[in-house]
Amino acid sequence: MGRITGTTRLLAVLGDPIEQVRAPELVNPLLDRLGRDAVLVPVHVRPDDLAEVVGGLRRIGNLDGLLITVPHKFEICRHADELAPAAAFTGSANAVRREPDGRWRADNFDGVGFVRGLRAAGHEPRGRRFALVGAGGAGIALAAAVLEAGAARLAVCDTDGERVKALLARLGERWPGRVSGSTEPRLEDADVAVNATPLGLRPGDPLPFDPGALPAGALVADIVMKSRQTPLLRAAAARGLAVHHGLAMLDHQLDCYRDFFRL
Amino acid sequence: MGRITGTTRLLAVLGDPIEQVRAPELVNPLLDRLGRDAVLVPVHVRPDDLAEVVGGLRRIGNLDGLLITVPHKFEICRHADELAPAAAFTGSANAVRREPDGRWRADNFDGVGFVRGLRAAGHEPRGRRFALVGAGGAGIALAAAVLEAGAARLAVCDTDGERVKALLARLGERWPGRVSGSTEPRLEDADVAVNATPLGLRPGDPLPFDPGALPAGALVADIVMKSRQTPLLRAAAARGLAVHHGLAMLDHQLDCYRDFFRL
Repeated sequence: MGRITGTTRLLAVLGDPIEQVRAPELVNPLLDRLGRDAVLVPVHVRPDDLAEVVGGLRRIGNLDGLLITVPHKFEICRHADELAPAAAFTGSANAVRREPDGRWRADNFDGVGFVRGLRAAGHEPRGRRFALVGAGGAGIALAAAVLEAGAARLAVCDTDGERVKALLARLGERWPGRVSGSTEPRLEDADVAVNATPLGLRPGDPLPFDPGALPAGALVADIVMKSRQTPLLRAAAARGLAVHHGLAMLDHQLDCYRDFFRL
Repeated sequence: MGRITGTTRLLAVLGDPIEQVRAPELVNPLLDRLGRDAVLVPVHVRPDDLAEVVGGLRRIGNLDGLLITVPHKFEICRHADELAPAAAFTGSANAVRREPDGRWRADNFDGVGFVRGLRAAGHEPRGRRFALVGAGGAGIALAAAVLEAGAARLAVCDTDGERVKALLARLGERWPGRVSGSTEPRLEDADVAVNATPLGLRPGDPLPFDPGALPAGALVADIVMKSRQTPLLRAAAARGLAVHHGLAMLDHQLDCYRDFFRL
């Protein structure tokens, strides 16, 4: 960490819970390497307080932008003046910046970060069959990004059937014939199974799905990044499956953040 | 600076302008020495935005308190649920903390920090004649503290005659016969002249008073702490007067902050 003084610019990452966020540990060393007089701090915001906290943060003169995590990625879009294409398509955002004219612009880098991370680990998504569990903010972003990256098929699952239906309608219009949905995971012929739920954040969470239902040779990816080895990834590894940890998604968003926040 | 993670607690210092605040450079090393997973960040708030920013900050779950500087020390009292005696008497506060029950309690350590700083530098205030220029938030706190510490006489000056009158009424009730006021500085028989205005913060500011009007042997103290040597202190030193720099007030408030924020 560089020294914080009165001239230091602020970025904040908003979530509930907040203790598990890894962005400060990744972004602050980047700011240091770039020689920027800026710091990213964690900000714990309960859902009922989002409007008031964001309203207050927007009026802080030396705060240049926000990163957004669970559960605020949908709701934050209501507080932005402008949505970049990835935020508009997914209806969710994980980054907001103040434009020179004072408007706030929201974008979503979860999907591109996830795909970049898969490729960097040698898992090319093109032509693969994906099962995605969780149609929340991150799930929608990942769904659009793996389809955009050439996934052969995507089976979306969420316990909330309305969410699944809404997501299928949007994805099917843009990528017809490659998308299916259900309220129970369909894993039996997946090449890649992805947890895009927050399950695994809290001790005692159930597994988001049973890796034992996957074929041999499948890859299990998690977006939970509280610890490198989540219960899901441990269970998958114990069955001999390849695993892809959640931090990769964030690691590979750093370049996106750097561009977005003009660092 | 310790490493900032998702578990890091927040303190914020609010001011307008903010670039000159020294609290982050003093408090963050203290937090490090104490091994606290907490950080103090600068927050630039324009006066019109104070209510909304404070309303937002109060709802941040991992924010434990605020330091307050120019020009918000009066107005912040309207946003506190409870005033400690020094804040109640001065009508101004420079620290606010969240109590265990969620109420926000405001206190004012400017005065005690200033007196402790004077004493640490060998300038015992008891029996001395003070001239104080500036009856704003810091001025009121300093006035009460030097009278409490035994100053023989205090001549208060502010260009705003109503402010002077209001302050005299309050001080005179508690310390009768020792206080006078005017809209022009009365320096000719002062032992200690104190600048409690923000003049000296911005390049091109006029001097708050002319040190040439002081008797030989007088001490000139500044509360401006943007740089150790303010234009006022340079002018005083050039005339052979003793000087007392603004950072001393903040240095000697650190113990107060430590107790107040339960660090």
